[in-house]
Amino acid sequence: MRKTAMTEEDGRMRAVIERITPSVDNGRFAAKRIVGDAVVVEADCFTDGHDTLACLLLWRREGEAAWQETAMAPLVNDRWRGSFVVESVGRYQYTVTAWVDHFLSWRHDFARRVEGEDLRIAAQVGADLIEAAAQRAKGKDRTLLKSWAARLRAVVDAQVLKTLGMDEEFAAVAKRYPDRNLATTYPVEHPLVVDRERARFSSWYEMFPRSASNEPGRHGSFRDCEARLPYVAKMGFDVLYFPPIHPIGRVNRKGPNNAVAAGPEDTGSPWAIGAAEGGHKALLGELGTIEDFRSLAASAQAQDMELALDIAFQCAPDHPYVEEHPKWFKWRPDGTVQYAENPPKKYQDIYPFEFESEDWQGLWQELVDVIRFWAGEGVRIFRVDNPHTKPFPFWEWAITELKREYPDAIFLAEAFTRPKVMHRLAKVGFTQSYTYFAWRNSKHELTEYFTELTQGPGREYFRPNAWPNTPDILTEYLQFGGRPAFIVRLVLAATLAASYGIYGPAYELLDATPREPGTEDYLDSEKYQIREWNLEAEHSLSELIARVNHARRDNPALQSDATLQFFPVDNDSLICYAKSDAEQENLVVTVVNLDPHHVQSGWVELDLGAFGIDAHTPYQMHDLLSGARFLWSGARNFVQLDPQRAPAHVFALRRKVRTERNFDYFL
Amino acid sequence: MRKTAMTEEDGRMRAVIERITPSVDNGRFAAKRIVGDAVVVEADCFTDGHDTLACLLLWRREGEAAWQETAMAPLVNDRWRGSFVVESVGRYQYTVTAWVDHFLSWRHDFARRVEGEDLRIAAQVGADLIEAAAQRAKGKDRTLLKSWAARLRAVVDAQVLKTLGMDEEFAAVAKRYPDRNLATTYPVEHPLVVDRERARFSSWYEMFPRSASNEPGRHGSFRDCEARLPYVAKMGFDVLYFPPIHPIGRVNRKGPNNAVAAGPEDTGSPWAIGAAEGGHKALLGELGTIEDFRSLAASAQAQDMELALDIAFQCAPDHPYVEEHPKWFKWRPDGTVQYAENPPKKYQDIYPFEFESEDWQGLWQELVDVIRFWAGEGVRIFRVDNPHTKPFPFWEWAITELKREYPDAIFLAEAFTRPKVMHRLAKVGFTQSYTYFAWRNSKHELTEYFTELTQGPGREYFRPNAWPNTPDILTEYLQFGGRPAFIVRLVLAATLAASYGIYGPAYELLDATPREPGTEDYLDSEKYQIREWNLEAEHSLSELIARVNHARRDNPALQSDATLQFFPVDNDSLICYAKSDAEQENLVVTVVNLDPHHVQSGWVELDLGAFGIDAHTPYQMHDLLSGARFLWSGARNFVQLDPQRAPAHVFALRRKVRTERNFDYFL
Repeated sequence: MRKTAMTEEDGRMRAVIERITPSVDNGRFAAKRIVGDAVVVEADCFTDGHDTLACLLLWRREGEAAWQETAMAPLVNDRWRGSFVVESVGRYQYTVTAWVDHFLSWRHDFARRVEGEDLRIAAQVGADLIEAAAQRAKGKDRTLLKSWAARLRAVVDAQVLKTLGMDEEFAAVAKRYPDRNLATTYPVEHPLVVDRERARFSSWYEMFPRSASNEPGRHGSFRDCEARLPYVAKMGFDVLYFPPIHPIGRVNRKGPNNAVAAGPEDTGSPWAIGAAEGGHKALLGELGTIEDFRSLAASAQAQDMELALDIAFQCAPDHPYVEEHPKWFKWRPDGTVQYAENPPKKYQDIYPFEFESEDWQGLWQELVDVIRFWAGEGVRIFRVDNPHTKPFPFWEWAITELKREYPDAIFLAEAFTRPKVMHRLAKVGFTQSYTYFAWRNSKHELTEYFTELTQGPGREYFRPNAWPNTPDILTEYLQFGGRPAFIVRLVLAATLAASYGIYGPAYELLDATPREPGTEDYLDSEKYQIREWNLEAEHSLSELIARVNHARRDNPALQSDATLQFFPVDNDSLICYAKSDAEQENLVVTVVNLDPHHVQSGWVELDLGAFGIDAHTPYQMHDLLSGARFLWSGARNFVQLDPQRAPAHVFALRRKVRTERNFDYFL
Repeated sequence: MRKTAMTEEDGRMRAVIERITPSVDNGRFAAKRIVGDAVVVEADCFTDGHDTLACLLLWRREGEAAWQETAMAPLVNDRWRGSFVVESVGRYQYTVTAWVDHFLSWRHDFARRVEGEDLRIAAQVGADLIEAAAQRAKGKDRTLLKSWAARLRAVVDAQVLKTLGMDEEFAAVAKRYPDRNLATTYPVEHPLVVDRERARFSSWYEMFPRSASNEPGRHGSFRDCEARLPYVAKMGFDVLYFPPIHPIGRVNRKGPNNAVAAGPEDTGSPWAIGAAEGGHKALLGELGTIEDFRSLAASAQAQDMELALDIAFQCAPDHPYVEEHPKWFKWRPDGTVQYAENPPKKYQDIYPFEFESEDWQGLWQELVDVIRFWAGEGVRIFRVDNPHTKPFPFWEWAITELKREYPDAIFLAEAFTRPKVMHRLAKVGFTQSYTYFAWRNSKHELTEYFTELTQGPGREYFRPNAWPNTPDILTEYLQFGGRPAFIVRLVLAATLAASYGIYGPAYELLDATPREPGTEDYLDSEKYQIREWNLEAEHSLSELIARVNHARRDNPALQSDATLQFFPVDNDSLICYAKSDAEQENLVVTVVNLDPHHVQSGWVELDLGAFGIDAHTPYQMHDLLSGARFLWSGARNFVQLDPQRAPAHVFALRRKVRTERNFDYFL
């Protein structure tokens, strides 16, 4: 119970502060923003009676002693708003302070006084307050306030007195010296994590380095990957993500198509990490040396791409940890370790860590050290495998520790599990999160899910990363929808979510064959074997992907999720939505035919008012995929999409500008 | 920042608890319940991986060291629910604890084991866990668990082993001895205030004792009030509320109709409290002695009514406090105290307290002492005048202090002000709150407002008390709507809100004359003068009021607000809604014609599914006001209401019961 004894707090602290936003679980977790963002903070602030309140937003970088202060302004209904710009990555804090401002109250009251005697008394009251402010001021402000107070005491004429009391310039000085002795400060210092832009806007390409050789039967290497970089760069991706690159266990190694027994030539699953030659800090010999890795990373950077590594905290049975740290595993009465299971899947080649180990602290330190090792090699993006099978307190600690050293680090949570678990991972610190996008196919499902992602409480901390496929997820829609399905899902991922990714070359080459009907596993999955890919195949989507990614780079609207808005179409096979940049200058409207088999058409109904377009002025819809330009007018317009030709429009909406400086009159 | 150092908490505490409900500002304030309520608590509880969780609801009376524990059961989507019954008034606390239960996880896993070797190893693992449980158990439970473990180690036959491992009775014993060493307990102990039933269900009658004499020119007294009790009781009210009964100031006393100057015979406003003969703990001489007051209170109690007093923390200029405690007032430079204002209203006869006084602690103590004094006289219901002009911290402290001594005390907040201020008062401790009901007239307004009151976040702490009139509020609707308007507003207040009140006899005698057009002040308001009332007048609504109040007493549905539900009517002048008791046995459907001038009719559409009535079985609508019974069938039924005859139906919905024991076959 709080404040039932009078002695705990000064009972004259009359200002009340409630419901600060953003606020994740009342400040238990950090909201997330990007460098350069204006962080808009609101709170309910009020007091008893009719006095006037002053409110300040307090903010600082975590660890700094002093708060920065920004004035908050009242909106309606006792809601106040202020903002501050975050200029570098790292952790910040913010809260709100408010007080009953007697000078402001007096001024409000004085403005309404008319009677002579009343006015003179009110002027005396004001003079007292202004003299007190003068005591808090220095230099010429103090002199000015003192003289103002003296004149308020001396003037007799009502009209002159009134004008003097309401003087704006004097008041501006007095306002700078408020009496904050009885200010209330909201007791929770809300944390804020500020990331670099890629945390919000990123285009991922996943590939297996061992399949990069382009020579039948030869194990791919980092050098092969380096040669592959221009291919990936040309498609416009900025994150190149590799499954684990470490030695692969030999004990219980899996064969092709997840066979329980591997042949002598089988390469096993890269997620079965560790063998005699090393574990999570070592490289699989066939991939190359650390120098090769460094060369690859440097080349990627030179081509505006960044490597992302896979953090899979689990071990092959012959990982050195098993002998060196037996306490980190859960031993069964028969002297074996229970292998990992994700029912009905069994991973006989993988031992999970035992996080309830009595040496949990040693385990935590070592695991963070693994990431620190790769961060030391310049890696800043980590795709974390199955984080939901490790304790949340571990991730909260680990990510906080690592971001203290590497505040530009990005962690993508690969958790396809229950919604609250996924949200908790985002709350404890993951920068981005995989989503259910792969299984949301209908207009209703997509609309509901992305509305929740972009407008629900998660919008403050859960950054979606949409993947139409992964090595584990070949969806039914892709299996049966043919080439149009691949285009549809690519365009949806890339325009609904500011961050998205594909697993290639399986994706651009339309690999749609499951291991067996009814599963989402790929036949001859790269998880268990090397694959060869004909990157030059005519059916490749690589050019279309390039157009999509360039549209994303050119249009700030597609680089964040906050403005996503769906519009009605009178055909449930067509979905329409828009995004804009913060200034509403750049507008992108996407229309997709979700039916991969049939031509669909319908009337799209935009909210022109939200775009600041009047109903009678035409506007141009510039399809960024085909290059075609359409002249639209009014809210309702007709769209027809043939999946065999082009199942989607990604329109830049260009408003008419009446100037000869623009060639086509639309911007 | 929390838990970034490994040393602060055991990192193996893997259970997560989020989003406990009810929760008022994350446990900063108490939720409110009534004696006998089952307090249903929910929380999101989950852990990493696939282990099984156990969750307990912890609760206790505030001040008790030990928690009571109640099992929580999983709903869907990681939500858990448990409940406890509060059997007496006072303050309680609750929170939730959860842990990964290895015995439950093992049992879940064991159920799926089939292979022989695997099953035997799993049995050994279980035996270890059961032996650990045996160490925590005593007596025959320990013996039983030990023998269970021993048999799990010994049995060889797979089928027998499986049956033994899944034994329900043994498991029930083992579950009672979980390992809670790594349990997570939600860190906020949520407070709960439990009130007596009248906090939720009350029918208030406000009257001025000084107008109770029934003799022209004679000041009414407590004895007159005592004689008036049967009249009020017959109408079915259970709270009789008096404006202040203390000496009235003589300095700046107001005359009739708020005249600034009073004549020698004028009685002044009872809210101008205090004169030479005493202040807030004294009685106005004309009303009688403390013995008269006690006699009145006892008579009221004998007639199932309770007195409610007015707590108006303000002073007439001649209140003894002004001389005795000058620090409790704000002095102006001219040596006067600024009188109270509630712009544009001026209260020249009233001095506010200065809560920023350096002696604020002395002031707080004295004010609480005033309430304590009347509580000592047996008064337990207080209507608090303008609480929003006193600091919130004062009320939080004062109400908590007083309810510690008098946990059955009820405080009604008379604050007609901004929504967040009203909510804050309810949060800091007020038991009931006045509402905007008086100004919500249309179907849309009423539906929106009462939906917010009963389903918004305030439902946990803000208990509405609906008043169609007060001595300050004679609404336009009443001024122009005639007798039907008075009936409409009475029925709405009494059936929309479990607590309601009227200011009489002005209400039942249809006093509708404002002091001047465009104001809500009564002409010849009792606030400033004595009025005479002809209680026997033929136009009196007293009989109708009695029927309404008896309907409220007989129907539990009308005694709480949680179940309120609105139904469509195809005529905006008709409003229809229902309430039920918790068991859905008692159902009351109200239909009101909001148009006081014209007959209105329309089709009402009930949600029969919600009532458990099938579409083809007729049901009886028993009008509790007229006594008429209608046979309805299906969701849509026709209603016509003539304001001149009966502008409202208050139906008890009686379902058909096929038994000869019920005379009319409907219950």
